[in-house]
Amino acid sequence: MQNLLSGMRIIEGSAFVAAPSGGMTLAQLGADVIRFDPIGGGIDYRRWPITADGKSLYWHSLNKGKRSIAVDFRKPEGQELLTRLIASPDDGAGHFLTNFPAKGWMSYEQLREQRNDLIYLNLVGDRHGRSALDYTVNCKVGFPSITGTGENGGSQPLNNPLPAWDVITGQQIALGLLAAERHRTKTGQGQLVKVSLADVALATLGNLGFIAEMMINGTDREAIGNHIYGTYGHDFVCQDGERVMVVGVSPNQWRAIVEVTGTSRLLGELEQRLGLDFHYEGDRYRGRDEITEILQPWFDRRPFSRVAAELDNAGVCWGKYQSIRETVETDMDCSEDNPLFQRVHQPGIGEYLMPDHPLRFTAVEREAVGRAPMLGEHTEQILADTLGLSDAEIGQLFDRKIVAAAN
Amino acid sequence: MQNLLSGMRIIEGSAFVAAPSGGMTLAQLGADVIRFDPIGGGIDYRRWPITADGKSLYWHSLNKGKRSIAVDFRKPEGQELLTRLIASPDDGAGHFLTNFPAKGWMSYEQLREQRNDLIYLNLVGDRHGRSALDYTVNCKVGFPSITGTGENGGSQPLNNPLPAWDVITGQQIALGLLAAERHRTKTGQGQLVKVSLADVALATLGNLGFIAEMMINGTDREAIGNHIYGTYGHDFVCQDGERVMVVGVSPNQWRAIVEVTGTSRLLGELEQRLGLDFHYEGDRYRGRDEITEILQPWFDRRPFSRVAAELDNAGVCWGKYQSIRETVETDMDCSEDNPLFQRVHQPGIGEYLMPDHPLRFTAVEREAVGRAPMLGEHTEQILADTLGLSDAEIGQLFDRKIVAAAN
Repeated sequence: MQNLLSGMRIIEGSAFVAAPSGGMTLAQLGADVIRFDPIGGGIDYRRWPITADGKSLYWHSLNKGKRSIAVDFRKPEGQELLTRLIASPDDGAGHFLTNFPAKGWMSYEQLREQRNDLIYLNLVGDRHGRSALDYTVNCKVGFPSITGTGENGGSQPLNNPLPAWDVITGQQIALGLLAAERHRTKTGQGQLVKVSLADVALATLGNLGFIAEMMINGTDREAIGNHIYGTYGHDFVCQDGERVMVVGVSPNQWRAIVEVTGTSRLLGELEQRLGLDFHYEGDRYRGRDEITEILQPWFDRRPFSRVAAELDNAGVCWGKYQSIRETVETDMDCSEDNPLFQRVHQPGIGEYLMPDHPLRFTAVEREAVGRAPMLGEHTEQILADTLGLSDAEIGQLFDRKIVAAAN
Repeated sequence: MQNLLSGMRIIEGSAFVAAPSGGMTLAQLGADVIRFDPIGGGIDYRRWPITADGKSLYWHSLNKGKRSIAVDFRKPEGQELLTRLIASPDDGAGHFLTNFPAKGWMSYEQLREQRNDLIYLNLVGDRHGRSALDYTVNCKVGFPSITGTGENGGSQPLNNPLPAWDVITGQQIALGLLAAERHRTKTGQGQLVKVSLADVALATLGNLGFIAEMMINGTDREAIGNHIYGTYGHDFVCQDGERVMVVGVSPNQWRAIVEVTGTSRLLGELEQRLGLDFHYEGDRYRGRDEITEILQPWFDRRPFSRVAAELDNAGVCWGKYQSIRETVETDMDCSEDNPLFQRVHQPGIGEYLMPDHPLRFTAVEREAVGRAPMLGEHTEQILADTLGLSDAEIGQLFDRKIVAAAN
């Protein structure tokens, strides 16, 4: 964690990836993020992957650094407790993040009555109020149709195993809360900030030029396997079966590939034959299949270790294809050698490598990575210190099962 | 654009996706973002997709809302001009964003000498100082190995056509600059903020539970095609060949699928046969292939239009597989019907649909979406108004080809 946002408190009522990762980001940057859940856990509390005894590695990975309060908010008393937390008049409080239905006691209108300058960030599925998940949004914007080689006549679109829209939205949620806090600091004004998962994907489609390409050029993007559109990049199998991705986007990167593979003459002949000039990345894209054929023999003759050493030595931009097992078990960047990571014990689960936020703010120290809370771990602390309830009041809330502590 | 960050000025020296999209995000939220480029354009100025006469739809899509100054910064006078811009003592200035090599005049140390509280955000490839692109990072963290069905013995990893790490990093860059500005406002202290593309991917691998899964359970993730790990979701082909993604993650979503398809009895028999309880999403995942077989006939008998109407009516969470052409040409969410978008004329290119930032800040109006600048469009304005140079000084800079205007 990096203590940059100290004094900022966010209450989070959330599930799944996007909203929890937004709150986690702010926690990793030093904010006090309190996630509330129903007693026994919310809809995402048991999501896979799970341990042998059913603890969710998903939930605990996505909620690091937060405090947890378990509240029965079907009951009016639970709703009242959470309203007091969300609309707390404390300095730095008054931020609410949710992807729950924003209605009833949890609506912006009702909560704002308790704190007029409330900042309320609401993530929804799409602008029409329909539910949406990463996978239902991703297929709509077309990426599955251009994943892979389209060799079966393009009839089999392929989903993305990385829920990219969720992860992007999570970072935007953190950004949105910070931007709204800045606005409130300057003007005194709170606000409702809305974002839909569908809009995040659609905006990205535009930002990456896909919409302009269709509307101006009228051309749809094709599935091109492991090539990179508009430039040169492809995968190569080494002598020992290991595989690397090699990229020649910049002139320097391309020059390094040509030099290390000693293919300058063959590529020159290819340029002549095809009428292309590989100084231009567009021409490298046009000649991509033939270029790949010319480069492949160099990889055929070398085991991975030699390929790696020679590519590094020549300054080529490349990466090794790894399974997740390989990455976790063998890659030094995925170990405590990388200051991004610390091994941390998660109660009930065990010790594993946990990342900090990848942004490194050098004005502050990098402190211990915060693990996820146990569900309800901070219930009593929050009631006592944050809400200022008396021991008697707290005891009553527990007795009446309005709140619960961690088991 | 939404005028939330007014008074904040960021100077950007950048290329490709991540850094430019970070600056664009801040511009979309109202900051004054000045991108500088060499005269004639930088390394990404002609990237594909391009128009018939070579204008980059990529560059213009990724640099919306910014001002542009064209400067020959191989020359000392150009370097001095940019140093004055970056380290300007103006209120709200003193933010620099770059993925260029942070050395020489462009190093943090040298620039900070001109403004002690400078905020300098530096994006690099990996923590070792090596270059990296989305594609060389993505293969290292394992996602290509779990994309698709792995039917060829898993021997063909598939790249992601969405440069997800770049897009995520872009949002984190915007977040990092805002968080550092907040810190400076509170403490007076500037700082260097560093982020590497490789760390962004590795942190995400941890946040999504993949690292814990390997370290605690010892299990590698498999390529499962269009299923969703740990829950139920799959694609279905309708009678007319259209394809939909249907998701049953939450109990309500699952119940809606069972009800609309009328498969309650068959699924109950399947639960019996397999010893599973589909109230648990893990059990739905275990029975995913058989569930899909039971559901498919319902889709076989209906054309897409009926499938869509019945799924919507039943409250199923679903999405249609679309090509990018379909999305742009037929989806109302990808049109001006969606307040996210406006049709804007881009000089030299034409009119197309441009998105605002998907975060909707209701405390401010949504103003006109800002198009990309023409290269050097604001050179004179920036020299005169932002740097306060005289007409004579500006004339000399143009005459000596230290700067250039748009053609």
